[in-house]
Amino acid sequence: MVTTRLPSAGFSITIRIAVTADASSIGRLTTCVGEAGAIVTALDVVDSDATHVIVDLTCDTADAAHADQVVKQLEDQDGVDVRKVSDRTFLLHLGGKIEVSSKVALRNRDELSRAYTPGVARVCMAIAENPADARRLTIKRNTVAVVSDGSAVLGLGNIGPAAAMPVMEGKAALFKRFGGVDAWPVVLDTQDTDEIVAIVKAIAPAYGGINLEDIAAPRCFEIEARLRELLDIPVFHDDQHGTAICVLAALTNALRVVGKRLEDVRVVVSGAGAAGTAIMKLLLRQGVGDIIAYDRKGALHRGMPDMSETWQWLAEHTNKSDYSGDLPGAIVGADVFIGVSAPNLLTGEDIAKMADKSIVFALANPDPEVDPREARKHAAIVATGRSDQPNQINNVLAFPGVFRGMLDVSAEEFTEEMALAAARAIADVVGEDKLNPTVIIPSVFDSRVTPAVAAAIRAVVRGVPAPSNPAATPDSELDKAPEGIF
Amino acid sequence: MVTTRLPSAGFSITIRIAVTADASSIGRLTTCVGEAGAIVTALDVVDSDATHVIVDLTCDTADAAHADQVVKQLEDQDGVDVRKVSDRTFLLHLGGKIEVSSKVALRNRDELSRAYTPGVARVCMAIAENPADARRLTIKRNTVAVVSDGSAVLGLGNIGPAAAMPVMEGKAALFKRFGGVDAWPVVLDTQDTDEIVAIVKAIAPAYGGINLEDIAAPRCFEIEARLRELLDIPVFHDDQHGTAICVLAALTNALRVVGKRLEDVRVVVSGAGAAGTAIMKLLLRQGVGDIIAYDRKGALHRGMPDMSETWQWLAEHTNKSDYSGDLPGAIVGADVFIGVSAPNLLTGEDIAKMADKSIVFALANPDPEVDPREARKHAAIVATGRSDQPNQINNVLAFPGVFRGMLDVSAEEFTEEMALAAARAIADVVGEDKLNPTVIIPSVFDSRVTPAVAAAIRAVVRGVPAPSNPAATPDSELDKAPEGIF
Repeated sequence: MVTTRLPSAGFSITIRIAVTADASSIGRLTTCVGEAGAIVTALDVVDSDATHVIVDLTCDTADAAHADQVVKQLEDQDGVDVRKVSDRTFLLHLGGKIEVSSKVALRNRDELSRAYTPGVARVCMAIAENPADARRLTIKRNTVAVVSDGSAVLGLGNIGPAAAMPVMEGKAALFKRFGGVDAWPVVLDTQDTDEIVAIVKAIAPAYGGINLEDIAAPRCFEIEARLRELLDIPVFHDDQHGTAICVLAALTNALRVVGKRLEDVRVVVSGAGAAGTAIMKLLLRQGVGDIIAYDRKGALHRGMPDMSETWQWLAEHTNKSDYSGDLPGAIVGADVFIGVSAPNLLTGEDIAKMADKSIVFALANPDPEVDPREARKHAAIVATGRSDQPNQINNVLAFPGVFRGMLDVSAEEFTEEMALAAARAIADVVGEDKLNPTVIIPSVFDSRVTPAVAAAIRAVVRGVPAPSNPAATPDSELDKAPEGIF
Repeated sequence: MVTTRLPSAGFSITIRIAVTADASSIGRLTTCVGEAGAIVTALDVVDSDATHVIVDLTCDTADAAHADQVVKQLEDQDGVDVRKVSDRTFLLHLGGKIEVSSKVALRNRDELSRAYTPGVARVCMAIAENPADARRLTIKRNTVAVVSDGSAVLGLGNIGPAAAMPVMEGKAALFKRFGGVDAWPVVLDTQDTDEIVAIVKAIAPAYGGINLEDIAAPRCFEIEARLRELLDIPVFHDDQHGTAICVLAALTNALRVVGKRLEDVRVVVSGAGAAGTAIMKLLLRQGVGDIIAYDRKGALHRGMPDMSETWQWLAEHTNKSDYSGDLPGAIVGADVFIGVSAPNLLTGEDIAKMADKSIVFALANPDPEVDPREARKHAAIVATGRSDQPNQINNVLAFPGVFRGMLDVSAEEFTEEMALAAARAIADVVGEDKLNPTVIIPSVFDSRVTPAVAAAIRAVVRGVPAPSNPAATPDSELDKAPEGIF
């Protein structure tokens, strides 16, 4: 079975197989796996005797059903005995992906008495007397809560808090890897707005920032707005702000490549949920020509019935011609299509009807709004959320640097100025000389990205111009010499 | 100034001093510090020239006022210039004491796609389909929330959530160091019982256990009881259960030393708050002869006015003779005094009036109910909570092993049977041949304690007898080979 999805490391399996030891047996195995549409990535001999050899064959498959199929086709071969199949992704997640480590040694009585009782009492009293000291003397200085109610997890929908944990743990791992930020997953067994607001407010003293994650719209807007009012630490909703920053960064460079100005372009955004709304707000703030917002109920326009408060605002600030037709109609003549919605809404023919030198960001995951291979036949620039296509728009470019910067300067809120500065910083990492239709955004592994974003954020808070060549490592406050301790 | 408290590492300071370089100058410094009542623990030469030498002198002091005094006495010396004073305890706490570490490598695209999108989606769906998988595939397996509202922190009182953080972080560090448990501080900016219960219930999906900490009585009893009802993970209040386990362990061995039986002894407990109540319940469960409970309002007795529900229960189950006099009167003829209350309530003369071979546990910290040096003149056995006295009763002996054991077997609740088993395990770590009036409880650094406690807990849950020689390292489920993954 060859699926429409391509094999990927996310669906890598290792199969332990005993085969009769003749000259061509191993070759037959790899041929069989190849014919089944999987990609062999490793082959290790585990054991052998005079007549048999036992191998661990590792291969990338397209999805779970495809993996089953690959195993079945192997089992159907003569002289092949499949002993055990292990899924490398599940193995990686066993026992969770993060842990809590002690930064202090507790080897002897002296160390114990400084880190815990009786020494710790003085540190507590110092904070009780001067609450601002919490940022110096506790983990608050470098720690972010990754908060989710599990109501809109990836593209999986409302799967609840326990099932959301693997994503939130992964996010925490990314925060540390890319931003040096200590992030902790806070999944909530409630989807009540008032309760979520009350809980996040109550747990906030331990944290220097709140990252909301995978909370369904429109609830996420109210939660974010109320928490911003209540808390003196920044509240960032990655699905909104992180996505908007990355899209603006990519669009900035895409427009540079095609030689158009943001003020002149008409943009169609498919999906007016959390991500789409934030993208449109940031584009409007940056002065985009016009936007048509499209969601399941059609194009958002003035006088549309039953609109939420957010949609009402969008309808008033977009769609100058009050277009109310379908999505393929909306993109006729448009300069930019941005999809943050659902798979396969458009065809290559639809893309062909866009304006000259059109830009397509089809970001639905794992299956984009339009097949990127089809889109590429007609658009000047195509970007997706997929790691197996050029121009991957990935929030990892934004959130680690945004929080790194905010924590470094003890920011009390996340602002639109910060979002604009972060987008500019990401765009500028790709040098003018490197820019082309397949490189409008840096790789997530480009080590210049997080320091550039963090420096831009710090510059906003400090009210100074962003440095053009930020240090390769974040200018973190963490390692600076303490002053006035005693 | 020589204070009544002894110098300790909890109040260690490092003083940078420039002195004239003559043959006796360093000697004069150490003599001065010694005469000021501090203990020099290190002396490092930092720099020198022809006429001066700069040294870092580290010394233990008794408290902050004493440290000031030591510095002042140095400054008063001729030819001595104090440049800088740093407080080693504060330096240790800078930036907090724990961090979040990634257990997975995120070096390249393949690793990213397994740990995060798209691979993580399958792990999420596995948990959505089978919620029990959360214990295999997330940090729930090994993670405990350390929950406090900051209302009764150490002996410092109601200092609030931010100021409680250094203690909760320290607790998390101890959990990892002594039990291999990942613990996370959850400090709450609310002291409302209903709200605390709702919050802990909501955050519970990420955790395999809840450790309540430093929550004031009687609120802590209701919070614990309601959470036990609501949650399918164990709820443990260390101030209650951890203390009770350690006291029962110490008392078990103390009675062995003096040759008395628990059934025959009369115990006076000073302090009927969280710790005292739990101690008394466990002693009653174990069949103690009689108890008189004493708190600020006097001896708890039948018919006492305005008693809380907890005190009512205690009054009904203790104080057979309905004693209603004062504390010194209560301990006349008593076999055991257990203090979990306030400093200096009793004198050596009071202890002299106890029964022959009396046992005194004076656990108020940092200053015990009776000066242990005075008590030792009259009692057969004296224990305190202090690390600078023999027989330190320290909760670190209990909670790491209790949670290690509960997590290993996915326990759904903490029970009185577990408390009794844990106390027995701690007591038995001190071999019969090692037991004497100054060694009734193992050292917190005795590496046999946590494995013994964890093994005892696992045995209770599995319904088998506790092993007499548990492995030196916990029999953790964590490293066992995964089965049925795919």
